[in-house]
Amino acid sequence: MSDVGLYEAMSTLRAVRRLRTDPIPEDVLGRVLQAATWAPSGGNVQPWRVIVVQDAAKRKRLQELYVGPWKQYAKEHRAGIEHLAGEVRAKQERMMAAADHLAEHLHEAPAILVFCFNPGRMAITDTGLDRPSVVGGGSVYPAVQNALLACRAEGLGCTLTTLLCFAESEVKALLDIPDGWYTCAFVPIGYPVGSGHGTISRRPVAKMAFRDGWGDAFGE
Amino acid sequence: MSDVGLYEAMSTLRAVRRLRTDPIPEDVLGRVLQAATWAPSGGNVQPWRVIVVQDAAKRKRLQELYVGPWKQYAKEHRAGIEHLAGEVRAKQERMMAAADHLAEHLHEAPAILVFCFNPGRMAITDTGLDRPSVVGGGSVYPAVQNALLACRAEGLGCTLTTLLCFAESEVKALLDIPDGWYTCAFVPIGYPVGSGHGTISRRPVAKMAFRDGWGDAFGE
Repeated sequence: MSDVGLYEAMSTLRAVRRLRTDPIPEDVLGRVLQAATWAPSGGNVQPWRVIVVQDAAKRKRLQELYVGPWKQYAKEHRAGIEHLAGEVRAKQERMMAAADHLAEHLHEAPAILVFCFNPGRMAITDTGLDRPSVVGGGSVYPAVQNALLACRAEGLGCTLTTLLCFAESEVKALLDIPDGWYTCAFVPIGYPVGSGHGTISRRPVAKMAFRDGWGDAFGE
Repeated sequence: MSDVGLYEAMSTLRAVRRLRTDPIPEDVLGRVLQAATWAPSGGNVQPWRVIVVQDAAKRKRLQELYVGPWKQYAKEHRAGIEHLAGEVRAKQERMMAAADHLAEHLHEAPAILVFCFNPGRMAITDTGLDRPSVVGGGSVYPAVQNALLACRAEGLGCTLTTLLCFAESEVKALLDIPDGWYTCAFVPIGYPVGSGHGTISRRPVAKMAFRDGWGDAFGE
């Protein structure tokens, strides 16, 4: 197996939502999971685990649980893009069509990665602030990102969704997730129906990075 | 510039806490920032920004703000490892010594990346649950992880800390971070004093991944 270049992988990692049903070889899955384990975490505690859901009945149940939250999200999102026009709107609509497809066919992905975390094993430094806490995510989403990049390397389509958190208690029961552990990321993976990974659209560095204080664009 | 292999970068990304004061060329910093922008985020909204702090007085102020939370954390962590023995304990003590060094010399790193996020631009799906929310982190820490991996590619030492969230209001004032934006990750970067990145120590896949439900180790 050749190792894809780091920058090449990062710059072509797309959300791929139309997946083939073909099974994923064990060694390929193993490399994706190993990539996740390599990620850093606070105190190197690795306060996460991942469940690889391949069982057909469990995948179907995850799809059933996903549809409701997706429809609600989609309704709100579509209302929010009504004022857009031209290519910007067309792009949003293509994305939404692919996401509709994913919601209907989630169970057909040969594997769904369910990332779990244990907040009791995290030092969450922003719980006392008067705003939503995100720091616990700093010990799990680097692992998720590594897994996504490894999927890119292996030619597997993938996308990160968190909508199933709305059905967390049902997901916990389905997958025997014990007390103290919760869900934070769901990644359906499979070989792509279309061309898969490729060009991505992102804001440039000058819009995302400042030098020494807010507002002074980096590199300008 | 050659592109390091993805798996090579991931498997050798260490927390590097002893950094040289040598400046980082603009093009190198630019590539680290660009790698961050490539990361996925919920709805592709990219609800984060990064401030590259190079100004000496501001770096010194960040160091002053960091020392208190670090000392508190270190005291608790050292109490927690007192029962350990042998190589496990020696390893923890080496890590703590390097982290003490970082706390005393944080301002000597030629650049400190301060990642900010805007929860108003995020769909945080786990706010209604009876446990700490982490999902907002899903739209920022993939970008942080990309930046860390790019540092590895560029030969820059780096480590992720969130301790400065304890001084968020002071950091916001120092860097003119506007209302609605908050801090979630601080990454001092610089060329390493020692050998820098290299071997890492992580739990194996069989301890981190299950198949179809909690407890059934993947690959066994």
